[in-house]
Amino acid sequence: MTSTIIAPPKLKTIRQDFSVRFTYDVHFTEGLFHRNNSLLSDVLTQANTSSTQVLPVVDSGVLQAYPQLIEQITAYAKAYPEAITLAADPIVVPGGELSKQSAEWVEQLQAAVNTTAICRHSYMMAIGGGAVLDMAGYAAATAHRGIRLIRVPTTVLAQNDSGVGVKNGINAFDKKNFLGTFAPPTLVFNDFDFLKALPDRDWRSGIPEAVKVSLIKDADFFGFIEAAAEDLARRDMQTMQTLIYRCAKHHVEHIGGYGDPFEKGSSRPLDFGHWAAHRLEHLTHYRLRHGEAVAIGIALDSTYSYLQGHLSATACWRIIDTLKALGFVLYAPELSNYIDYPDHPDSIFKGLSEFREHLGGELTIMLLDAIGHGFEVHTVDFELYAQAIAHLQTSVTQ
Amino acid sequence: MTSTIIAPPKLKTIRQDFSVRFTYDVHFTEGLFHRNNSLLSDVLTQANTSSTQVLPVVDSGVLQAYPQLIEQITAYAKAYPEAITLAADPIVVPGGELSKQSAEWVEQLQAAVNTTAICRHSYMMAIGGGAVLDMAGYAAATAHRGIRLIRVPTTVLAQNDSGVGVKNGINAFDKKNFLGTFAPPTLVFNDFDFLKALPDRDWRSGIPEAVKVSLIKDADFFGFIEAAAEDLARRDMQTMQTLIYRCAKHHVEHIGGYGDPFEKGSSRPLDFGHWAAHRLEHLTHYRLRHGEAVAIGIALDSTYSYLQGHLSATACWRIIDTLKALGFVLYAPELSNYIDYPDHPDSIFKGLSEFREHLGGELTIMLLDAIGHGFEVHTVDFELYAQAIAHLQTSVTQ
Repeated sequence: MTSTIIAPPKLKTIRQDFSVRFTYDVHFTEGLFHRNNSLLSDVLTQANTSSTQVLPVVDSGVLQAYPQLIEQITAYAKAYPEAITLAADPIVVPGGELSKQSAEWVEQLQAAVNTTAICRHSYMMAIGGGAVLDMAGYAAATAHRGIRLIRVPTTVLAQNDSGVGVKNGINAFDKKNFLGTFAPPTLVFNDFDFLKALPDRDWRSGIPEAVKVSLIKDADFFGFIEAAAEDLARRDMQTMQTLIYRCAKHHVEHIGGYGDPFEKGSSRPLDFGHWAAHRLEHLTHYRLRHGEAVAIGIALDSTYSYLQGHLSATACWRIIDTLKALGFVLYAPELSNYIDYPDHPDSIFKGLSEFREHLGGELTIMLLDAIGHGFEVHTVDFELYAQAIAHLQTSVTQ
Repeated sequence: MTSTIIAPPKLKTIRQDFSVRFTYDVHFTEGLFHRNNSLLSDVLTQANTSSTQVLPVVDSGVLQAYPQLIEQITAYAKAYPEAITLAADPIVVPGGELSKQSAEWVEQLQAAVNTTAICRHSYMMAIGGGAVLDMAGYAAATAHRGIRLIRVPTTVLAQNDSGVGVKNGINAFDKKNFLGTFAPPTLVFNDFDFLKALPDRDWRSGIPEAVKVSLIKDADFFGFIEAAAEDLARRDMQTMQTLIYRCAKHHVEHIGGYGDPFEKGSSRPLDFGHWAAHRLEHLTHYRLRHGEAVAIGIALDSTYSYLQGHLSATACWRIIDTLKALGFVLYAPELSNYIDYPDHPDSIFKGLSEFREHLGGELTIMLLDAIGHGFEVHTVDFELYAQAIAHLQTSVTQ
């Protein structure tokens, strides 16, 4: 700039300062779209909005398990015309990580918002697993600067964790959830009926998030999971409902209760065991489910907590045994890749720098000093982590 | 779904309820990047963040007017190394509407966040006109679910309006700002020196937003603009600084003061004269600048307010005369296209349905019943609007 006259600021700084309140309800039900179940209609009728328009987005995996789902949704809208108008036929999107591996499906859904000409007071209703909810949530949060989002999570993982939270996102540049926003849903409906069709692997894969929250927050809840591990493994629905409810409640309270739900400052998500989990999903090219990777991440950080002298051996073995009883394998060969080269792009330890970069600020890892109590550290001992990995490798063959 | 057992909800609904506080300061200065001006350094040093990393994004139009700007920024960072570290060389993006006509530049900036590995506590610093700030703000809001944004608006329009607000966005599907988020900046620096290089057209084009806010909120402010119209037209800088300051203050207060800054409910932006303005920009393929279109939109809705019997003839002529004295032409031929066919895709009236769709809820148009006082209506009389357009057409030739 050519000016050389540096005037002191003459005009008083204007300060903006406001708060935005966010509320949403997480409902629990069965047969959400059964026409005898008026819950959805009742809730939409009471909603404070001028629009009844709903644009449904359905996970192809869910549709495969429930081929009549689209007909059911259409019939439901016909049965409750005052509460719900379908803006278009339900849009089917690929299930699983594929839906969020590129911007392709986000753009398709944004285009659908344009084509249907629905407004900011209308709803996108995403029905599916966590990946589909993340992707559709991102589309909903950015079309018209945010249309309303109804989440209908269909997996254990989505019902007890991501589906009741405030995030959305897609993967980009080979990084998980690199693009996304913090955008609370307008409504969440956890329909337990959807869990019946889950393959065993997906049923099981939702449980580690509950183990995680119990370990850092609620020893009594861990005791419940430990005692119920076999019931959960043999798919007892009543036990699973209790697990999901308690885990979802912790998740909702953690987000709302610490004054920083959008993680602008130093507030951390409930991410025990997660730095390694995110990294393992990537290194295994998603051969491991998120929950399977989290189970390994929990076992790893628990063992490391033990080796550092923070956690008792008994507590560490209770955790490992519970994860095993739930059916998890607690080691993956990718853990040992380039273990002596923390900076190698294929080393598990590269996950630490990615974790720091995504959450911002200094590196913060949660460890345990007791079951039910986590604490944070900001440095790690690579050699001790290598020992922890060796422990896990041994434990698999025991 | 196969289930026919409709159980009443057994598990109590979980309610999420939290507030997120947003604060940001709008600073006024000259020579922001002059090394004798410590404002930027001082503010960043006091900022509550663990990172000093800044990724600068520069509007190519600004760079053309100030070819030494990039060197200045680099030198500034070197002069204040404790406060500011450049994460990369400044990224130059096209100025004007081109930068937000597609997702191309958003993706480039997201890629730069990835390449530089800056975290959520680091800054993107966008220097440019409103379009560049909108585009860069969208990239910043979505990378890592939101990195910090510093806005340095360089036009009258951006300094008094969009640059101090909470929105970002790009155009999509032929609709203005179809994609975007509500995301307050972390800091705003209004540097008046940048205004010196503006072409007359751009200098003038920022003024209608101030006219708009004065008409619906502040009769005294309108009186100031009316009396100062000739000084503003001949580019008196002191007068312009006062205009920008008063307009920015109104804008900041309107956003923060009405309990709904993200327009989730029925809260409206300050959009008098804007339904026709957005439409005219599109219909003229951006031959008209936003401000030029807003001047026409204000004249149109003022005339309509008069024809409806709400606004006095004297008040209406004061508005028209002030806009003319500022140098605006208050008619464009596109206003009269398909004027008897409100549903035709090229009719100006199609702007009403787009406006409703983007803001959500029912159609809401602001009219005037006095200078300094707006009120809302939810229906319009097309025939009376056609008369208003005829009035404007005549006024041009008078």
